[in-house]
Amino acid sequence: MSLLANRERLLEQVRAQMNQKRYEHTLGVAESARQLAVRYGADPDKAELAGYVHDYCKCWPVAKMREVIVRHDLPAELLHGEKELWHSFVGAIVIQTELDIVEPDVIQAVRYHTTGRVGMSLLEKIVCVADYIEPNRVFPGVEQIRKLAEQDLDQALAQALGGTITFLIEQKKQVYPLTLHAYNDLVSKRGGI
Amino acid sequence: MSLLANRERLLEQVRAQMNQKRYEHTLGVAESARQLAVRYGADPDKAELAGYVHDYCKCWPVAKMREVIVRHDLPAELLHGEKELWHSFVGAIVIQTELDIVEPDVIQAVRYHTTGRVGMSLLEKIVCVADYIEPNRVFPGVEQIRKLAEQDLDQALAQALGGTITFLIEQKKQVYPLTLHAYNDLVSKRGGI
Repeated sequence: MSLLANRERLLEQVRAQMNQKRYEHTLGVAESARQLAVRYGADPDKAELAGYVHDYCKCWPVAKMREVIVRHDLPAELLHGEKELWHSFVGAIVIQTELDIVEPDVIQAVRYHTTGRVGMSLLEKIVCVADYIEPNRVFPGVEQIRKLAEQDLDQALAQALGGTITFLIEQKKQVYPLTLHAYNDLVSKRGGI
Repeated sequence: MSLLANRERLLEQVRAQMNQKRYEHTLGVAESARQLAVRYGADPDKAELAGYVHDYCKCWPVAKMREVIVRHDLPAELLHGEKELWHSFVGAIVIQTELDIVEPDVIQAVRYHTTGRVGMSLLEKIVCVADYIEPNRVFPGVEQIRKLAEQDLDQALAQALGGTITFLIEQKKQVYPLTLHAYNDLVSKRGGI
C-alpha cells in the first residue's frame, strides 16, 4: 500500500495540530519536497510524507513538548537548549506514536529538518531545503536558494544554512552547533560552495 | 624580574619571524592588549607580552609549522583542518621552546587568539579582542568593536567573533567550531549580546 494511501486522514490529523498559516506552509513543503525528490532521485512519496509531518509539533505548547522529551528520555541537553529545536526532535517521536510512521529515513528527515547535521541523507537534505524554499516563504535571499535548488541541492542547502547562521548572529542569538557542523560538512565536500 | 625586562631582545626575535606589516600589527596588539588589561584588571605585562608573541609563527612556512605539529604530537585533526589556525597552536608551543615563556595564561592566550574557545580567561579575551581592534586594523565594523571594548569586553568579543563567522560564511568558507562555541558561550552568558 502506498505511503500516502490515507493522505486525507493524515492531513486531517496534521491540520488539527496547527494554525492555518503553518498548515499552508506544511502543504508547501510537501509540494517542494516532492519536486526535489523527483529531480534528485529520492522517493517522492517519502519526501511528500516527510513534508506533511515535519512541523507536526511546531505549534504545540512548550509543556506538551517537554513532556515528550522527558517521557521518551531524549537527551537532557535538549531541555537546556533552544526551544526552537524541540518540535523537530519531538516530532520525530510523535509521528511514530500518533501517525504510525515507521520509515527510518522519514523520521530522520523530521528530526534534522531544523538544524541539519553532518552526513545528511538525500531525503534529509530535500526536506531541509524544501522547508526554506516552499512557495509561501518570503525572506531575503530565498529566490537565490530556489534557483540553486534547481541545480545543486548541496549548494542550496549550504547557502540556506549559512543564511540561518548569519541571521541568528545578526539577531545576537546562539547558533545551533549541529547547523554549523552541517554547513561545514557541505562546504568541505565542495571545497567551498 | 619583570616579564618584559628583556623587551628589546624579545622584539628582535619576534621581528625576525615576520614581515614589517605583521610586526606593526604585533606592536599594535601589544599596545591594545595592555590598555585593555589596565581597564579590565588583568596583568598589563602579561597582556603586552602575549601581544608581542601572539603571531610569532604567523609568517612561517606551512612545512615549518607542520613539523612542530608532528614533533610535539599536537592533535592530528589540526593537520586536516584549516591551516589558518596552525600559527596559534604552533605559536603556543614555540614561544615556550624559543622564547622561554612559561606563563600558562600567556601560552593559552596565544593558543586561542584566533579561534576563541568556551570559557575563555580574561587574558585570552583581551588578546583576542586586541587582535581585532589594534590601531592598524581596518575592516567594516571595527569602530563599533573598539567602542564596545571600552565598555564591555564580552560584548566586544561576541561581536568580533560573530563578525568573523559571518565573514567566513560570506566567503563560502568553513567556520571553526571553536569560534562558534566561543560565540555561543558569550551570548548565552549575557542572554543575547
